[in-house]
Amino acid sequence: MEKYIGKSVYKGTAIGPINVLKKSDGIVKRQHVEDVAAELQRLEDAKKQAQAQLGALYEKALQEVGEVNAQIFEVHQMMLEDEDYQDAIHSMIETEELNAEYAVAVTGDNFAEIFANMDDEYMQARSADVKDISNRLIRNLSGEEELDWAHMEPSIIVADDLTPSETVQMDKRKILAFVTVHGSTNSHTAILARMMNIPALIGVPVELDSLHSGTMGIVDGKDAVFCVDPDEATIAAAHEMQARAAEQKRLLANYKGRPSVTKSGRKVNVYANIGSVSDVAYVQENDAEGIGLFRSEFLYLGKTALPDETEQFNTYRQVLQTMGGKKVIIRTLDIGADKNVDYLGLGKEDNPAMGYRAIRICLKQPDVFKTQLRALLRAAKYGNLAIMYPMIISVDEVLRIREIVAEVAAELKREQIPYAIPEQGIMIETPAAVMICEELAELVDFFSIGTNDLTQYTLAIDRQNEKLDEFYNPHHEAVLRMIQMTIDGAHKAGKWAGICGELGADTTLTERFVEMGIDELSVAPSMVLSVRSKICEMA
Amino acid sequence: MEKYIGKSVYKGTAIGPINVLKKSDGIVKRQHVEDVAAELQRLEDAKKQAQAQLGALYEKALQEVGEVNAQIFEVHQMMLEDEDYQDAIHSMIETEELNAEYAVAVTGDNFAEIFANMDDEYMQARSADVKDISNRLIRNLSGEEELDWAHMEPSIIVADDLTPSETVQMDKRKILAFVTVHGSTNSHTAILARMMNIPALIGVPVELDSLHSGTMGIVDGKDAVFCVDPDEATIAAAHEMQARAAEQKRLLANYKGRPSVTKSGRKVNVYANIGSVSDVAYVQENDAEGIGLFRSEFLYLGKTALPDETEQFNTYRQVLQTMGGKKVIIRTLDIGADKNVDYLGLGKEDNPAMGYRAIRICLKQPDVFKTQLRALLRAAKYGNLAIMYPMIISVDEVLRIREIVAEVAAELKREQIPYAIPEQGIMIETPAAVMICEELAELVDFFSIGTNDLTQYTLAIDRQNEKLDEFYNPHHEAVLRMIQMTIDGAHKAGKWAGICGELGADTTLTERFVEMGIDELSVAPSMVLSVRSKICEMA
Repeated sequence: MEKYIGKSVYKGTAIGPINVLKKSDGIVKRQHVEDVAAELQRLEDAKKQAQAQLGALYEKALQEVGEVNAQIFEVHQMMLEDEDYQDAIHSMIETEELNAEYAVAVTGDNFAEIFANMDDEYMQARSADVKDISNRLIRNLSGEEELDWAHMEPSIIVADDLTPSETVQMDKRKILAFVTVHGSTNSHTAILARMMNIPALIGVPVELDSLHSGTMGIVDGKDAVFCVDPDEATIAAAHEMQARAAEQKRLLANYKGRPSVTKSGRKVNVYANIGSVSDVAYVQENDAEGIGLFRSEFLYLGKTALPDETEQFNTYRQVLQTMGGKKVIIRTLDIGADKNVDYLGLGKEDNPAMGYRAIRICLKQPDVFKTQLRALLRAAKYGNLAIMYPMIISVDEVLRIREIVAEVAAELKREQIPYAIPEQGIMIETPAAVMICEELAELVDFFSIGTNDLTQYTLAIDRQNEKLDEFYNPHHEAVLRMIQMTIDGAHKAGKWAGICGELGADTTLTERFVEMGIDELSVAPSMVLSVRSKICEMA
Repeated sequence: MEKYIGKSVYKGTAIGPINVLKKSDGIVKRQHVEDVAAELQRLEDAKKQAQAQLGALYEKALQEVGEVNAQIFEVHQMMLEDEDYQDAIHSMIETEELNAEYAVAVTGDNFAEIFANMDDEYMQARSADVKDISNRLIRNLSGEEELDWAHMEPSIIVADDLTPSETVQMDKRKILAFVTVHGSTNSHTAILARMMNIPALIGVPVELDSLHSGTMGIVDGKDAVFCVDPDEATIAAAHEMQARAAEQKRLLANYKGRPSVTKSGRKVNVYANIGSVSDVAYVQENDAEGIGLFRSEFLYLGKTALPDETEQFNTYRQVLQTMGGKKVIIRTLDIGADKNVDYLGLGKEDNPAMGYRAIRICLKQPDVFKTQLRALLRAAKYGNLAIMYPMIISVDEVLRIREIVAEVAAELKREQIPYAIPEQGIMIETPAAVMICEELAELVDFFSIGTNDLTQYTLAIDRQNEKLDEFYNPHHEAVLRMIQMTIDGAHKAGKWAGICGELGADTTLTERFVEMGIDELSVAPSMVLSVRSKICEMA
């Protein structure tokens, strides 16, 4: 039995096999090979393996996400056989007597760059595909195994760190807990863990190479302990803790079906934050009164091209219909910063958190924005929709958004496509927006305070930067005062204000927020009933 | 004659030869060589050339900055001859038949890494030196010329972009203007241009490869035109513009020796911002009433090790003595973000602007901080010193600083070294500091508002990011309201508040700042008289 102490980012206890995600270090060594024929055979084997993998992915995707989304794997299969691509790799192995990994890496980079520099948008998007298939070949050549979510049993994910684009591809039903060597308290791993109501530890000083997938593990989110190969007593204690948590959950279940109202009768809407269609099940399971933040990024991340209007419309409509008449607040594309996609060609920035992201991309690339708005306005006919715009800093931006929405509505009208203009609000997540909230309140229907970003800009601290954990104070008085200013600004114009950042789920602050006059708290589904119980217990 | 339109970041007209700074692309090609002996000879020649260059640098530094600072070039000369280093390069050329550039690059990287991983701090610092000498060898091998500031005539610097560590090494007397292909309105090039009162253009779409150093050029900072090989008429017009600017300067000179007081008798201190000891000459030339921001970074940048207490003490004392009894506000180390040094081992961050920088480094590495504080407290005996701490976000930080200052004072007392505890203030450059300014004002002697950083955090916009220029509004109402809050917070506690960011020099706002109650404006030396004239003209 080995015990490691880390830092807990979400409570709970998990018992199960561990699954170690080892990442290749990304360095492909250039090596001279003696036996060129053998090297070409290795390449051939890796290619066959890749074809089989892509075939399996196609079948899986066909069942899970449909024909249109599955097609990308067929495209990959075709690109893998592309004559120019294969010729370039072969020639490098033969004439320069180099190892296949290196030949694939160099060829892949060259082709990706050629595609990226083409004028045609479709061809540009192929750049990411070439990289994908080259990486797949290299993985196969070096014998690395791809994580097979389909045939995996539920397990404790242990990794160096997890990026949003990695987590978006995970099958969440197969995850019991997260354990990472790096990562910070406010990282996406933490957000995901809260969403899924599973324990998560970061900063766990474990050597990934010393672990074997399949070994039994225990994650104790309360005391921040990760235990590998536990003894009987430790397993028994973990089961005991799970039982107690289940009991508490049973008690909280009493709050299901009740409104979130203080004893003196003040109503606060307790909504849920979600990041994919399948999360709607968590919303219903936890009896949230609505969806206060639907992150539309999942439609864009982990893809090779922009989602089209139909795909978006179908998704939004599905969520609205599933939620019945309950409020669903969909946030428009909030990409950039640590969430990037190749096909938008966003490029590398020195400070992406203060960079080209969210509404800035939408205003500079209005075609991308309009496609989403068309889908939203069409979907608005099918339920109680609200749209929310992220990263606003000025009145001008809001006026420009209103113009674009009007243009989109006029287009739909001209095309005789049914649509409705829903409620529209903005995220208050920059200090600028707080300072001019009275002016902004005149122009929108509601505010939703994004405390994560607001806190990082206010404190000038990147919340993902582990080095700054000791300076980062999520309860900083500056942020709480900004929240008060925002609520007051909204109310002065007769609008409502909510919180959809992590702070909204901090039950040590629930009473303070209600006293401040907050109208809505949108939290991880797993936190809905805890927050409601806090509100109901208030005088 | 070729004309290019860019974006002006500082006014003025320059006429003179252009000097194109071409940067190597940093890519060293790996090439097979047939004639190994010839390659070894090339290496030998490059080494001899490097020895001569280092010798010349030593002599120059000896005269300009003294024995202690010049020694580094002797160290480089010795390292260049290091047997292990030379053996490794030779062996790579001989046994692998590779080109000398590649052998030097790989060997340099390997040695730099070995040094960087040593426990001893002195040896770690040698990592940067190995890189330096390796780069010098590669430059010599590829026939690139080093810019020879000593023998250069004053010229227009044309470059792709300029980093702070590049500009710190420039001989400012040799610069007539800056022209860069990239860079943003608020970049360091812009700051430097304002300091030096020379025109600067950014975003100039010129092909650096098409230009030749020595060709005549004209920079028109008013209309943002960069003219290469101008005709007679254009040269005449430029001379005419220079004459008019000189006339305006003559008029401004009337304000020399006068206090900055409005007609109704309100006094505002107009101080100057400087970044090196030699800038003090600009301060005096422009009759600033004091130094409102002395950036102490120049002592740390472009070095291979931390400056010691004596070096710092001598520098601070020199500035204080030169300024007579006038106020000199020295800001403690504000490194990190885009100002990095190898020897502090700060590492790479995803969002350095919201990262491990300034006071955060000082509080986490108190030894670095204490050395600077010891030098400052000692220097305080020699003039009217004030210390200013950057990047403050909390009361706790200020309390911790006070503890450290008390420790340093106790040490000096115990060692019977003369010292004084000067006035101490903080930069207000984070939204957090603005929101809690009333609490902070109780603990410090003054506030100095750093509008550059404050604006970028408030708007969540990296001011160096060209993509965001259309969203960046330096006159954003949010920032102006924060300035008002800060002034009010200071006055409530009986303290004074100034501005030391670029906004303080914006004469379209001078009147508004005075009406807000500002007590001090610290601006580029070249702007002192313009700001003073604005104040004197006010009712």
